[in-house]
Amino acid sequence: MLYRLVITESQRHHDQIILQPDQEHYLRRVVRLNDGQSFIAINGRGNGWQVELTTTGGTIIAEMNDDRELPIQVSLMVALPKGSGFDDIVRCTTELGVSRLYPIISDRTLLKPKENKLVRWRKIAEEASEQCERFIVPYIAPPLPFLEAIQHIEDNSPRFIAVARNTDKHLLNCLNSADLPSQITIVTGCEGGWTTKELQSAIDHNFQPITLGKRILRAVTAPIAIMALISAIAENK
Amino acid sequence: MLYRLVITESQRHHDQIILQPDQEHYLRRVVRLNDGQSFIAINGRGNGWQVELTTTGGTIIAEMNDDRELPIQVSLMVALPKGSGFDDIVRCTTELGVSRLYPIISDRTLLKPKENKLVRWRKIAEEASEQCERFIVPYIAPPLPFLEAIQHIEDNSPRFIAVARNTDKHLLNCLNSADLPSQITIVTGCEGGWTTKELQSAIDHNFQPITLGKRILRAVTAPIAIMALISAIAENK
Repeated sequence: MLYRLVITESQRHHDQIILQPDQEHYLRRVVRLNDGQSFIAINGRGNGWQVELTTTGGTIIAEMNDDRELPIQVSLMVALPKGSGFDDIVRCTTELGVSRLYPIISDRTLLKPKENKLVRWRKIAEEASEQCERFIVPYIAPPLPFLEAIQHIEDNSPRFIAVARNTDKHLLNCLNSADLPSQITIVTGCEGGWTTKELQSAIDHNFQPITLGKRILRAVTAPIAIMALISAIAENK
Repeated sequence: MLYRLVITESQRHHDQIILQPDQEHYLRRVVRLNDGQSFIAINGRGNGWQVELTTTGGTIIAEMNDDRELPIQVSLMVALPKGSGFDDIVRCTTELGVSRLYPIISDRTLLKPKENKLVRWRKIAEEASEQCERFIVPYIAPPLPFLEAIQHIEDNSPRFIAVARNTDKHLLNCLNSADLPSQITIVTGCEGGWTTKELQSAIDHNFQPITLGKRILRAVTAPIAIMALISAIAENK
């Protein structure tokens, strides 16, 4: 298994890769690569290259095919759970193929995310993409209030809102592997659930309420369960 | 929402509940219940009661119906991930309806679980059952070597082993919501995957290899994804 790392576009010039000092250190001292040995560089936007380590950085020796992405783009809007729960959400949903994550401040959100959280979440997404062998790093938006977030969705793809203790359809019953939309948006709540006003606003913005089963899932578990389900439906064979 | 707690059989005498000092402290000081107010006691085996707090403990005022369990009993055998990853697996899979968890030591397992881990995992399972409103607390077995674990399965229900980088069927394609078995056993690996010998032993013991999609899931994510999928198939409506 070749080691993977994310590079920015400015690090690539034709077939040459300029490594950052920490990346070079990691490849040589931790992964213990020598000149002439290979690693994989990804740009986080769907491109990947096999790269040979050289004295001046790296030389691309082959372009790689990306066959790890779901055939459906999933945007998850996630009311921020308490503690470091969103870290787990970023990690697990990246592995399960999410496209975009929107951390949401709902009426019952207790966490006030610090400025440096977004940097941390994006770093976790990079590492998760490297680990699970994706070439795409999911986009993570800056935290937004719930109402603002749902007002700013521009596409007309199907939208769902997960609600605990309801009698709505299960998400599995709303998606058909033979006829998947190209995009989908799903919102999940935080501890304490949605306020009546929030749920009504979501419905007014064309979100369809769905259930995720009979037990009460924590705010961390719900988005992971959703991505597990969607990836299975999309990759069922 | 009434507060929930797990009691042992020895704490119940006819309609009287004897509370442990820490439970009484929690109900009165943290949840701030007064005499005459209600909570829910569960025995972790499928029974639940609405209980009124009294000066001497609690009095059962109603038996409750358990409608939170999946119609399929799922046993997960999970190769122990590094760090505290198994804590997350216990928490999330309990919420998603698992029946039994078997922590497994595989050839590539790095973690040597300490004695007190089992007590901790069982406590996490209790808390997760209380939180997600189940009346059953999943059974967690003491850690076992992989080969020993698969040799000791006594029932003849379907058995699957999750394998990364394979071209086998997706788990979703092996289960049919109209014709679910009453029991199922699924094994998931640790970082580094299965050795050839382990995989062959599993196949020799009638485990069918399955995939969980095109990306490489961590040892923590795989069992959670499996339970999300099975609960959706079982509760699809």
